[in-house]
Amino acid sequence: MNLKEFSARIGLSQTTVSRALSGYPEVKQETRERVLAAAERFGYRPNVSAQRLATGRAGAIGIVFRGGGRFGPHSSEFMGGLSTRLQEDGIDILVSTVEGAGDEEAAYRRLAGSKRVDAVVLHSPACEDARIPLLRTLGLPFVVHGRSDTALPFAYLDIDNRGAIAAATRHLADLGHRRIALINGDTVSTYARDRDRGYHAVLAERGIAADPALLGHGEFTDETGFRLMQAFLALPAPPTAVIAGSMMSALGAMRAIRVAGLGVGNDISLVAHDDVFPYLSPENLVPPLTTTQSPIRAAGGRIGDMALRLLQGEPVESLQEVWPVDLVIRGSTGPAQA
Amino acid sequence: MNLKEFSARIGLSQTTVSRALSGYPEVKQETRERVLAAAERFGYRPNVSAQRLATGRAGAIGIVFRGGGRFGPHSSEFMGGLSTRLQEDGIDILVSTVEGAGDEEAAYRRLAGSKRVDAVVLHSPACEDARIPLLRTLGLPFVVHGRSDTALPFAYLDIDNRGAIAAATRHLADLGHRRIALINGDTVSTYARDRDRGYHAVLAERGIAADPALLGHGEFTDETGFRLMQAFLALPAPPTAVIAGSMMSALGAMRAIRVAGLGVGNDISLVAHDDVFPYLSPENLVPPLTTTQSPIRAAGGRIGDMALRLLQGEPVESLQEVWPVDLVIRGSTGPAQA
Repeated sequence: MNLKEFSARIGLSQTTVSRALSGYPEVKQETRERVLAAAERFGYRPNVSAQRLATGRAGAIGIVFRGGGRFGPHSSEFMGGLSTRLQEDGIDILVSTVEGAGDEEAAYRRLAGSKRVDAVVLHSPACEDARIPLLRTLGLPFVVHGRSDTALPFAYLDIDNRGAIAAATRHLADLGHRRIALINGDTVSTYARDRDRGYHAVLAERGIAADPALLGHGEFTDETGFRLMQAFLALPAPPTAVIAGSMMSALGAMRAIRVAGLGVGNDISLVAHDDVFPYLSPENLVPPLTTTQSPIRAAGGRIGDMALRLLQGEPVESLQEVWPVDLVIRGSTGPAQA
Repeated sequence: MNLKEFSARIGLSQTTVSRALSGYPEVKQETRERVLAAAERFGYRPNVSAQRLATGRAGAIGIVFRGGGRFGPHSSEFMGGLSTRLQEDGIDILVSTVEGAGDEEAAYRRLAGSKRVDAVVLHSPACEDARIPLLRTLGLPFVVHGRSDTALPFAYLDIDNRGAIAAATRHLADLGHRRIALINGDTVSTYARDRDRGYHAVLAERGIAADPALLGHGEFTDETGFRLMQAFLALPAPPTAVIAGSMMSALGAMRAIRVAGLGVGNDISLVAHDDVFPYLSPENLVPPLTTTQSPIRAAGGRIGDMALRLLQGEPVESLQEVWPVDLVIRGSTGPAQA
């Protein structure tokens, strides 16, 4: 029985229960006794980290964004999952928004010094990410959404980006495509580097020469997807298939294909990586989109869970997960046209 | 150079320097200018946490969400605007997620008691919203995104929801439509009540009898838009035009229209309210969508600004804004078919 279930059972808010069990003075003696008696009766043992967080410490997990522009569909789904999990234990999220890398470092120093958060979630890690040694030096517990090349042990949750894009590339190669384009993120980021690797591994495996002109990098927006796809279509030998790094890039790519008077699925095959946005389902597009699929909301929830376990003293080595990614085949991919 | 050294250099107390640099009203204009000039001359950049210790402020604005499920496209755009503005002043956002109304009240009490935030942003206000008198009682400064029926003065920013939907309804009536459906939110919320009023006012103005079967309420999701539109189309006398409360509802409505074998723009006219999501542009849909348009990101930024001005001592009466909403006519609306 967790805090949420226990509170519901006795008809009190999670906050009141937390406080009663932690001996906060705002709670009436009568309420406290009622909560303690019920805890005994139902065999409810409060989560130690929740207790510690709710009492001795900040009761908040920090997350730093570089620029408000980073708030987009991915961040809201991730935050939704994270907050839903932290809510069960009455933990808040402290969002700091900073201008650039130097300011981000200053923000972590400030968070570590001010005791306003008990741990932080680090996102969008680079292949070599200076924030990881920094956070270790500062003694600020952290969980990384993604991975990074470092010998230092740290807690992380990542999806199998390499395997996902390898599966997408293989699916297209199986359909006879030899000119396969990839719309990727900036390969300074580990996830994008891993996607590049999955793509190139399958091209090599199938004896397809990699063409740098078919590899595009940029932000995962409709605009960038459109621009990159238009550039691909303007090549002397345009691709017959494309892999888009996000649903947003895919929307732009579909638009560019349509504008060129071509059809998605027959003229150009399209696979997108789908982080699962409830309002933008690949099956509702025309044609329905083949995707590699992994809900970023679920990742947010799991990372909240890992942060709490970290604060309970679990070693970082037991807090390392890589989630497999499914390939879901729908109407947007078909045989290569001769 | 730290705060202590800088203050000694210019012969002022650390508190005065901190306050001057944070723009607090306790400091005379002349002193502020002197401090700013000296900071420029010595290349002094204030350490935010030192500044907070000296000023006694939390350096954070709070926002409470009921359930992580509320994190969606609207919240990320709003948060993006809010954080971009607050970042300029080095202010963080403390996000608390709670289960229900009782927990939300408890969260405000906790925030007020703990001095972890200097002010809160209240969103999704109801026509009669108990949180407004509560926050006033708690003495916690707040800015409301939206309006509420209360004689109490408070700071708010709202868009002209009534005017927006009135303009959309009028546009459709001008095209000869008499069976106009509305996909609205829950009219417990002020914005939805205002939209209902704008819709009914124009129907009355044009002598069109309001048909309750053409009025749907629900969450602004693709799924609800689809379900409501299917129900409208199954009526003995289906609508020839529909107004969707959000881009997400519009996507669902478009899908239902397509599934029924009808065309958007010729068979059924569609207007959507667009909060402006960079990855979901009405002009990129087929056909391009007629919208009432107001960027919720800009509203988030302005509310951040208003919260800071409130903390500087501006009276709430000067912090009340209602933004007009534009009607942008595109291909999804056309003459009613005979």
